[in-house]
Amino acid sequence: MLETTIAAIRPPDESAMAAARELQGRLTKPAGSLGALEELSVRLAGLAGHCPPPLPEPAAVAIFAGDHGVHAQGVTPWPQEVTAQMIGNFLAGGAVVNAFARQAGASVTVVDVGVATPLPAAAPGEEGAGAPPTRDVPRLVTANVRPGTRDLAVTAALTRDEARAAVETGIRVADELIDAGAGILLTGDMGIGNTTPAAALIAAFAGIDPAGTTGRGTGVDDPTYARKVAVVRAALRRHAPDPADPLGVLAAVGGLEHAALAGLILGAAARRTPVLLDGVIAVSAALAAAALAPHAVAAMVAGHRSAEPGATVALRRLGLEPLIDLGLRLGEGTGALLALPVVTGAVRVLHEVATFDSAGVAEK
Amino acid sequence: MLETTIAAIRPPDESAMAAARELQGRLTKPAGSLGALEELSVRLAGLAGHCPPPLPEPAAVAIFAGDHGVHAQGVTPWPQEVTAQMIGNFLAGGAVVNAFARQAGASVTVVDVGVATPLPAAAPGEEGAGAPPTRDVPRLVTANVRPGTRDLAVTAALTRDEARAAVETGIRVADELIDAGAGILLTGDMGIGNTTPAAALIAAFAGIDPAGTTGRGTGVDDPTYARKVAVVRAALRRHAPDPADPLGVLAAVGGLEHAALAGLILGAAARRTPVLLDGVIAVSAALAAAALAPHAVAAMVAGHRSAEPGATVALRRLGLEPLIDLGLRLGEGTGALLALPVVTGAVRVLHEVATFDSAGVAEK
Repeated sequence: MLETTIAAIRPPDESAMAAARELQGRLTKPAGSLGALEELSVRLAGLAGHCPPPLPEPAAVAIFAGDHGVHAQGVTPWPQEVTAQMIGNFLAGGAVVNAFARQAGASVTVVDVGVATPLPAAAPGEEGAGAPPTRDVPRLVTANVRPGTRDLAVTAALTRDEARAAVETGIRVADELIDAGAGILLTGDMGIGNTTPAAALIAAFAGIDPAGTTGRGTGVDDPTYARKVAVVRAALRRHAPDPADPLGVLAAVGGLEHAALAGLILGAAARRTPVLLDGVIAVSAALAAAALAPHAVAAMVAGHRSAEPGATVALRRLGLEPLIDLGLRLGEGTGALLALPVVTGAVRVLHEVATFDSAGVAEK
Repeated sequence: MLETTIAAIRPPDESAMAAARELQGRLTKPAGSLGALEELSVRLAGLAGHCPPPLPEPAAVAIFAGDHGVHAQGVTPWPQEVTAQMIGNFLAGGAVVNAFARQAGASVTVVDVGVATPLPAAAPGEEGAGAPPTRDVPRLVTANVRPGTRDLAVTAALTRDEARAAVETGIRVADELIDAGAGILLTGDMGIGNTTPAAALIAAFAGIDPAGTTGRGTGVDDPTYARKVAVVRAALRRHAPDPADPLGVLAAVGGLEHAALAGLILGAAARRTPVLLDGVIAVSAALAAAALAPHAVAAMVAGHRSAEPGATVALRRLGLEPLIDLGLRLGEGTGALLALPVVTGAVRVLHEVATFDSAGVAEK
């Protein structure tokens, strides 16, 4: 399934991109005056293969949740149970991602791809994996590969088969959401401790020291931060992951939600559907997806610049400029949801704005 | 009317701000993880005088349109008639501002505060100034103070009375929109040549040379740009406007839409209603409003950072950080509309997100 998905990912359509550039020049506005939105509309035309590309509606957020054996190293002050508790909060509609999703009219699908502790009893949105999400009721998909990763400070976080299973879960979720009508997918994540594997993945794929990719996550103090950097550095020395073997990197130092997000991105790219990236977890997964299928980058839109330093390293490597830069470091998909109206607006311009000719407006 | 409006503008409510800060700390997210949105929610609580502040809905865009005598100096390659033609485009729903307003569910009110050439016949939205705007049909308000300013390179752009009349038009429009239910006002502008008076206003209020405030507007070539800077510099030397006399500055080197926008901002501030600023025209007007009533800044939210250099100078003086920075330089209210979901989202968090206590989520 992974191989057929990768094989389906094609380069962007140059003629659709040229048509979008030409159309932008005829609309009733000074050439170039919509800044980054113009190039975004061109990229999305290239992805869709026609101009204008479809409006990216409806939007679907997929929140992949997992736990992390490296929690045992004291890399975060939060108890591991918070991952499961926050799933309860997502399904009850009480988290920030829910508030932003309601505002944006986006559905929320929570995927347990590797939570370690029991989920809250009678999670209200629980349904079979095939049921389509709705805008109003978050949905839970149970696809637990294993109850959290192993401790990457001690051993490989995942076996190669586990990493592949998580990636393929992400591909499957992408297919289901697109089959149910989604016009754009938004990445979300939940996992206490998950900025540690994200920092490791980014350092591995970028080939730089973890001091440049590790941040303070939810806000750790100085000793915890120093421990976090040391743990990531030691893990990279121990496992020496090879960036030319992306599945091997995900297995050695990744997380189940990171692997699943890489799959979601690949699945979206194979279906020529844009995927709006959230923060540092998403862009670490995006590096893995791009390593597996370089043309997948054409489907990626960077929602925001996370406050985590690794996010900026990853975005630079992907060649993506984020749409929003407001110091967010929450995850869940919140940064992607804030950026969604910008993406929709960029495409809407191609659909709805009059040309100089049709509106009877003189040109300079 | 101007004096009573200024007298009604009060400082923000410190206890509402403290309550918003305290609430942010109890919501189910790491402290500070919503970055700039947290402080924005605190500011809006202070403006409203209670916590949570009301959701900023519905939104109303007011586009003030005017022409400029300085057009005769060749500061722009666009014919002056485009101002009136674009009003026709706004009323027909064909401009970028209309596309973004439809997406955001915002009404559009176009105010002719000083257009020089005839408006398109049978402008579809024309109604009396008292009729409330609707989301779907843009409305035209006719409040033409004079058919364009005088040429500021030769004489004062406006008399003091004309400047006051334009400011009071803006106050009246703010009152009408808020009376009709608007929860937030968005600034819009249309006026061929209007970045020239904006550059002059910003240079006058900031006390700096126009080279640092003048940009390429809709995209002028090098000789036109050099002419534009020289025109602004000569006008400031000739009129020597006194920043302690804001109405005098607006009269000497301003525009009718700039003056009206200053009034809109003052009117919103007097009603404790947020006003979302668009680009360089808006922030030049905001400097005038802040000079007239310093506490008006509490009502201002900077929507985006225009590509015009003067915008950054003005934002710094106002102490405002923009929400969006995507290289836009279109005006009309487009940058403000892109930022609107961020403002709404920041407030929505205070209304809808569960606390650690209510959601049963453990804290660190």
